[in-house]
Amino acid sequence: MKKTILLIIFILSLFTISYSKSSDPLPSWNDTAVKKNIISYIENITNTKSPDYIPEQDRIAVFDNDGTLWAEEPIIQLLFSFYKVNKMAETDKSLASAQPFKAILNNDKKYLENMDKNDLVKLVLKTQTGTDTVEFEKEVADFIYGTTYPKLNIPIYKTVYQPQIELINYLKENKFKVYICSGGDINFMRAVSQKLYGISPENIIGSYPKYSYNTDESRVIRGAEVVSNNDKEEKPANIELFIGKKPVIAVGNIGGGGDIYMLHYSQNGQNMNPESKNYKTLQILINHDDEKREFKYAEKDNISLNWAQKYKWNVVSMKNDWKQIFSK
Amino acid sequence: MKKTILLIIFILSLFTISYSKSSDPLPSWNDTAVKKNIISYIENITNTKSPDYIPEQDRIAVFDNDGTLWAEEPIIQLLFSFYKVNKMAETDKSLASAQPFKAILNNDKKYLENMDKNDLVKLVLKTQTGTDTVEFEKEVADFIYGTTYPKLNIPIYKTVYQPQIELINYLKENKFKVYICSGGDINFMRAVSQKLYGISPENIIGSYPKYSYNTDESRVIRGAEVVSNNDKEEKPANIELFIGKKPVIAVGNIGGGGDIYMLHYSQNGQNMNPESKNYKTLQILINHDDEKREFKYAEKDNISLNWAQKYKWNVVSMKNDWKQIFSK
Repeated sequence: MKKTILLIIFILSLFTISYSKSSDPLPSWNDTAVKKNIISYIENITNTKSPDYIPEQDRIAVFDNDGTLWAEEPIIQLLFSFYKVNKMAETDKSLASAQPFKAILNNDKKYLENMDKNDLVKLVLKTQTGTDTVEFEKEVADFIYGTTYPKLNIPIYKTVYQPQIELINYLKENKFKVYICSGGDINFMRAVSQKLYGISPENIIGSYPKYSYNTDESRVIRGAEVVSNNDKEEKPANIELFIGKKPVIAVGNIGGGGDIYMLHYSQNGQNMNPESKNYKTLQILINHDDEKREFKYAEKDNISLNWAQKYKWNVVSMKNDWKQIFSK
Repeated sequence: MKKTILLIIFILSLFTISYSKSSDPLPSWNDTAVKKNIISYIENITNTKSPDYIPEQDRIAVFDNDGTLWAEEPIIQLLFSFYKVNKMAETDKSLASAQPFKAILNNDKKYLENMDKNDLVKLVLKTQTGTDTVEFEKEVADFIYGTTYPKLNIPIYKTVYQPQIELINYLKENKFKVYICSGGDINFMRAVSQKLYGISPENIIGSYPKYSYNTDESRVIRGAEVVSNNDKEEKPANIELFIGKKPVIAVGNIGGGGDIYMLHYSQNGQNMNPESKNYKTLQILINHDDEKREFKYAEKDNISLNWAQKYKWNVVSMKNDWKQIFSK
């Protein structure tokens, strides 16, 4: 009897070992150099016997959102503002006579393609401020789960990149705190981040308006003033403000050069904890080069790829490094 | 043989049960109503069979810092700015001729007691901006661990309230995410929060200047502009910004009426998660009424105690509810 039990335990233990060795944490990634770099980095820094071991409290990873975790051609928050202008125009007739709202209502493509920064600011303030945070997030969730993404013809929530979901889960299994740090609005992302990515609201950093607390109504109101446009150099600044620790992993994408400062900071920035100065870090830059399965686009000045070469960051070719792009 | 083992297991299990029942999570609290309310609240909302059960991800607690977790007569950050003015004056001779620096250098008590808001702003900008965050936090930690607190004649780091450390630990054991939300500067608190309270930098919300990232030097600089003075109605606004979830526990103190909006919000505010609307919540207000062991002070308009009565918050009498105030 005793021998039988021991034999069963032995067989079970073999099974467990072989199972954990053979299970691939990143099945939607091809077995190319980037995937190998990611896995060997994680195995190294989580190994207590390695000189590069990083204690759990300093395992911080930051991801951009648009173009890094889901599609950005066009940017989904821009689609939301168009959707919202159409809804608002049902009761607010004045919108039809003022730009850029008029162009949106008439689908004036020529105007829309040449919108300037002033138009965008007007659009954001009109469609995304003035309400309270709870109401705003409800509208966003309804939109994201109820609308089709143009060009790809799939629901918006399906434009999430499956390889990145696997990477987030792999990092979380290895005791990383995973944050999003994106140019998108903070409540826009919080409305869906738990459901889409398994990332909770308190781990979201984004652009934000001025909030105020209305005591009589017990509501926090999104005011008509953008306090931070969380892009470029503003990203490291907001990481410092929200987290107060330098991330050891930063993931962004080419597009508008918006993520390179965040990657630079994770690699070169100073760290609060003097002992953690020499942590090994990992930078990943997604290159949109897959016109068949997603989109192919580049920056005019190529700044993101140039910095990636200069600083030796990992560049993900969506075409070659990702076996699958969207979840099925 | 088998029976012996079973007996041992039985005895061990009895021991475990009696041990966990008898251990007091809050030994520095007297057995008064407030302590009973806290413990029965926690036992209720962590009990999966209770109708008031709160899932772990929604267990958020926020604490004020000055006067709630450590002494505030005088405010420790003000002492730091005096200390810093004295240090800066060694190389910057111009300070001796401009107010309020002149008054600090000459210990002009009459001037110092009547400093206005402009003086305080000048003081903060001069002594606490312009450096990078890493350098600033080092200076703060040196100060807090190397300076004596006036009136009490103990090291500054010893002015932490022992009952509150026990409360923080008790909440963490019950899977709460514990945040500080204080009018103090965010880096000032982050410099010592892990060591003093066991609260990590990413869980600190405070007042903050404008940060900027200097790419050439890879440093985040604290700019000469205060973006948020995290007091009164600004506290719920910043909780929303940093956490994106409404806390179910809020702890503050009487003094300047700075915490009542945060307590009000935790009790009455809307919650992002529609299912969590009806969570039971807990509000605690510390009353400084112990002139023997700490200080006795009150607000001119009594607003904090009035709100506590109106909204049925728990009021802690430091004199009656705390067995011990400072750690030994």
